[in-house]
Amino acid sequence: MKYIDGGVCAPNGFRANGIHCGVRKNHSKKDVSLIVSDVKCSAAAIYTKNLVKGSHIAVTKKHLSDGTAQAVICNSGNANTCNADGEEKAEEMCEIAASELGIDKNDVIPASTGVIGVPYDVTPVRNGIGELVSGLSREGSRDAALGIMTTDTRVKEHAVSFEIDGKECRLGGIAKGSGMIHPNLGTMLVFMTTDVSISPEMLKEAILSDAQDSFNMVSIDGDTSTNDMVTVLANGLAGNKKITEKDENFGIFSKALGMVTEKLCDDIASDGEGATRMIKCIVSGAKDFDSAKTFAKSVVCSSLVKAAIFGSDANWGRVLCALGYSGAYTDIHKVDLAFSSCQGSIDVCKNGAGLPFDEDRAKMILQQDEIDIIVTLHDGNAYATAKGCDLTYDYVKINGDYRT
Amino acid sequence: MKYIDGGVCAPNGFRANGIHCGVRKNHSKKDVSLIVSDVKCSAAAIYTKNLVKGSHIAVTKKHLSDGTAQAVICNSGNANTCNADGEEKAEEMCEIAASELGIDKNDVIPASTGVIGVPYDVTPVRNGIGELVSGLSREGSRDAALGIMTTDTRVKEHAVSFEIDGKECRLGGIAKGSGMIHPNLGTMLVFMTTDVSISPEMLKEAILSDAQDSFNMVSIDGDTSTNDMVTVLANGLAGNKKITEKDENFGIFSKALGMVTEKLCDDIASDGEGATRMIKCIVSGAKDFDSAKTFAKSVVCSSLVKAAIFGSDANWGRVLCALGYSGAYTDIHKVDLAFSSCQGSIDVCKNGAGLPFDEDRAKMILQQDEIDIIVTLHDGNAYATAKGCDLTYDYVKINGDYRT
Repeated sequence: MKYIDGGVCAPNGFRANGIHCGVRKNHSKKDVSLIVSDVKCSAAAIYTKNLVKGSHIAVTKKHLSDGTAQAVICNSGNANTCNADGEEKAEEMCEIAASELGIDKNDVIPASTGVIGVPYDVTPVRNGIGELVSGLSREGSRDAALGIMTTDTRVKEHAVSFEIDGKECRLGGIAKGSGMIHPNLGTMLVFMTTDVSISPEMLKEAILSDAQDSFNMVSIDGDTSTNDMVTVLANGLAGNKKITEKDENFGIFSKALGMVTEKLCDDIASDGEGATRMIKCIVSGAKDFDSAKTFAKSVVCSSLVKAAIFGSDANWGRVLCALGYSGAYTDIHKVDLAFSSCQGSIDVCKNGAGLPFDEDRAKMILQQDEIDIIVTLHDGNAYATAKGCDLTYDYVKINGDYRT
Repeated sequence: MKYIDGGVCAPNGFRANGIHCGVRKNHSKKDVSLIVSDVKCSAAAIYTKNLVKGSHIAVTKKHLSDGTAQAVICNSGNANTCNADGEEKAEEMCEIAASELGIDKNDVIPASTGVIGVPYDVTPVRNGIGELVSGLSREGSRDAALGIMTTDTRVKEHAVSFEIDGKECRLGGIAKGSGMIHPNLGTMLVFMTTDVSISPEMLKEAILSDAQDSFNMVSIDGDTSTNDMVTVLANGLAGNKKITEKDENFGIFSKALGMVTEKLCDDIASDGEGATRMIKCIVSGAKDFDSAKTFAKSVVCSSLVKAAIFGSDANWGRVLCALGYSGAYTDIHKVDLAFSSCQGSIDVCKNGAGLPFDEDRAKMILQQDEIDIIVTLHDGNAYATAKGCDLTYDYVKINGDYRT
């Protein structure tokens, strides 16, 4: 199993494109993307648990009721959320794409991301669909990834190749992240493709299970978006025997999926709005998996921890504080803490009390791009990792003036 | 019932003082405070629910086991938390005060606030106790309030006078707030005094009940502190018949308590670290009180809402988003939203969908110091208010470099 280039076009039979069509006023920013399979796919999606849901979510649920789809269309610049005619507009976007592609509109998955509560006009997509479809190519993954970006500063695309039944298979994905990122069962916008042959049920099972450890362990700002969605299209062109149960091949597929989602999560965490550093909190020695996850997430969500990491300040008391209010239980007098990065590791707390440490060395470790906060609870064998980023002036700047 | 001057010294028989003794290096900042009653008091306290607790909390619990106390001593500049010898040091601080005051050390309530995990040396308090005690006065409330401040920029002290049994009574309090403020049952550091005669049980009952609507509805940054504590000393010098049950006089006392805690909460919210505006989220029409509180708190805790208010951006979609992920349930298609301040009110969302509104007028409303976010759920009769502040560059600055 290895990482390869090509993103969502790495699997056989997928083409993609992204263009500027005019949903956004800024002409230099692509604002609509299309991913299409040559043949119908098994398809599955998971969605945000926010009570407020982007209109595309209801439409996607409807279109995936038969477990199949062939294309994804997604605009950025307008979330099409909290609009009275939102579902109508999402259906219309599917019709526009389906008509140009010559497929059924029920085989199109729509998605939108951007500002909430601004009426969504599909005219730009209607006007741009010819260019969007004619430009579809096997090299279009990067353009598609660009078209779904909002405040993202970097393209997020990854793919892996692997073998099932002696057949070469591929799985790829693109994502948008940045702000309003604190997934709850569903997640941010992620589109994945694979040429593996797999039933819709097993596909759903695989992404649901994976999301618990991947997307749901990322938080940028504690705000669970209204528009989060993860989808996978599986077109079966790799020619393997169809996966229909949780067998060994399902295990291989799930592992491949995990390799792509892990990288997408790293991208999302490190490209959080305003972020200068990615933070991973690695909790081990927890009494069970749920408490390990709760502790890890509490630390990466703490504004005070995030601001301290921004300032390269080894203020470990804030880490202990965040463990203490997480809601999970452990004996706080057995907790050890260390900070770690490519510059090494430094122990700062043992048995819940501070250790003397070299502040200059700690600062040097904390000035790197990726910071690990290592929490050892000595309370069992469970472990979990949560990912986030630091809290910076730029986060405030970006979000103090997002709409204008 | 009316607000009066004098803070914790407004009630008969209380004196206070605050000085710089050397816990902090900065000589211009007071760092230890003392509040003393002429006679023994009924006393009660409530504490943080963080698993990690400042050492003063265990000692205060022990000293209040008989329901009485006579003095409070509190230092700033060191939280005395996560220190192996922390309880020893907290006891020592009580002994130092008790010895100078000629009272029992078990009648002293200790408290500490500042950096977590730095060993606490009581030598400065020992050296300063003579000056601290000799300077106690009936006008000392402000100095005491100054001595407990950390990143606070304004003194927080309030008092009320009221009548019970035809006797003139008073209740006053001081608080520190600013950062690591997201109280959970216990709260930030608050010291209150009253000359009402009331049993320790009724005193505890009154502050526990009040905290649900006051302190526990404030959040600055979502971080529940390790050192939060609220205490009340009631010395009985007003001469009213002792309150020992939940009768009419208990109701009057509770109302007086609520008047002081409400003002202290306003102070804490508006003086949140880096804050330029106070935010109140007023949720009405909820199906029950718990969900009203959950919705209100979710909105004031949202980093995206807080940053939008900093930017005077009427980005109401973020408010709806925060309602949606709060964990409580309501029909989101019945929600109305408005923003309000001293410059008027503007409706921005009806039945969960956006209304056209004048952006310039919205901006003007949102540029004021106190912003109300009015949420109407049309789902019942319960209501609740949560308080917080905006998220600013200065919050990041203060917390990116707190220890140095």
